[in-house]
Amino acid sequence: MKTAMLLFPGFTALDAIGPYHALASLPGWDFTFVAERPGPVSNGGSFTMIAPVGIDEIGQPDLLVVPGGVSAITIARDGGALVEWIRGVHPGTTWTTSVCTGALMLGAAGVLQGLPATTHWYSHAELADYGAIPTDERVVRAGKVVTAAGVSAGIDMSLVLAALIAGEPFAQAAQLDMEYDPAPPFSSGHPRSAPPEVYAWLKGMYDDMLGAPSPSPTPTASADEAERE
Amino acid sequence: MKTAMLLFPGFTALDAIGPYHALASLPGWDFTFVAERPGPVSNGGSFTMIAPVGIDEIGQPDLLVVPGGVSAITIARDGGALVEWIRGVHPGTTWTTSVCTGALMLGAAGVLQGLPATTHWYSHAELADYGAIPTDERVVRAGKVVTAAGVSAGIDMSLVLAALIAGEPFAQAAQLDMEYDPAPPFSSGHPRSAPPEVYAWLKGMYDDMLGAPSPSPTPTASADEAERE
Repeated sequence: MKTAMLLFPGFTALDAIGPYHALASLPGWDFTFVAERPGPVSNGGSFTMIAPVGIDEIGQPDLLVVPGGVSAITIARDGGALVEWIRGVHPGTTWTTSVCTGALMLGAAGVLQGLPATTHWYSHAELADYGAIPTDERVVRAGKVVTAAGVSAGIDMSLVLAALIAGEPFAQAAQLDMEYDPAPPFSSGHPRSAPPEVYAWLKGMYDDMLGAPSPSPTPTASADEAERE
Repeated sequence: MKTAMLLFPGFTALDAIGPYHALASLPGWDFTFVAERPGPVSNGGSFTMIAPVGIDEIGQPDLLVVPGGVSAITIARDGGALVEWIRGVHPGTTWTTSVCTGALMLGAAGVLQGLPATTHWYSHAELADYGAIPTDERVVRAGKVVTAAGVSAGIDMSLVLAALIAGEPFAQAAQLDMEYDPAPPFSSGHPRSAPPEVYAWLKGMYDDMLGAPSPSPTPTASADEAERE
């Protein structure tokens, strides 16, 4: 069985390496990073890693993982070779998965039509443009399609997948191996808990970066929760 | 101000990339990966990244981050150029930090003598061999020396450091940016919570990998907690 994690210029390093930790050790599964062409792939900052194979060489993955990044939003909007590759391999996968805005690339490839899915909190409205049902949960499973929320949610998704693929004891050992006993020093990991001024500042930065304000940055499903709190 | 994250063959990818996410965006801080020599550095598996500079070229870092990995344990035991480099730059840093068994490399460089510190749960006893006071907390600060527990604890440490360096609103925005609102599907992130058979299996694997059983894999400070539970 073969796991392929797709890399592309501007991907968010932690979107990829968070789930890599548990997924690379799945017994009986061969893990490979893949990109449009083999060679170095940069996150657009100081991080560059090597994709040993290109999409033309890798063949059919059984588990596909698509990380996100600001560039994933624009790749999804523009289409192109990576989106077409996802569209081509999805019917043959056992699991098709994404982290953060990687979900938009799945969406552009037609994978999420009519399915509940999640993505980074900023991009829930845009996810609906691809026919998905934006769902404000950390990890959303719809049959063989599993999507994770923003960046660090890929770690939680990897443990969910590890349990589905290799059983709960393996997933629990993977969690213990990475000492995933989280203790964030602040309660600021989601728009529902972050200080409003921090949320406004970050949303403004994203709006500037992407050239246009998102029509509704807060996930639909969290509006009720926000009112309850 | 300059941040340097040290890479070496066999480093654990998530030890490095977890804290990278927040630390690479510190305003006014230039982030660089560094290795013994510039070029590709592999985790020993399917992950290879590029260190753009070597330890001979980078000069004095203000923030040093040392990730861990099984190889960090042996590098610490054997000494060598990387340990000597840490020993040389530590007096000039503003912050000297580690994730997971990177603490043992700090220890081998004499950084932790008499200081409370943490590391991966498996290596607490060995940390004491370097004169540190093993402390079972997620992130331990002793003046300018900050150590994180195993692997994923580097994310928590990066937010603690971000708040110390750039202020709480910045750290809170970094947390919201990475949607760090963790929801592990199991309670298995620490020996105190993991199923005993999962703990025994993983500890046995580590013992086999390192060639000798660790004398006391459970942190001293957690013995009382384990009894209370």
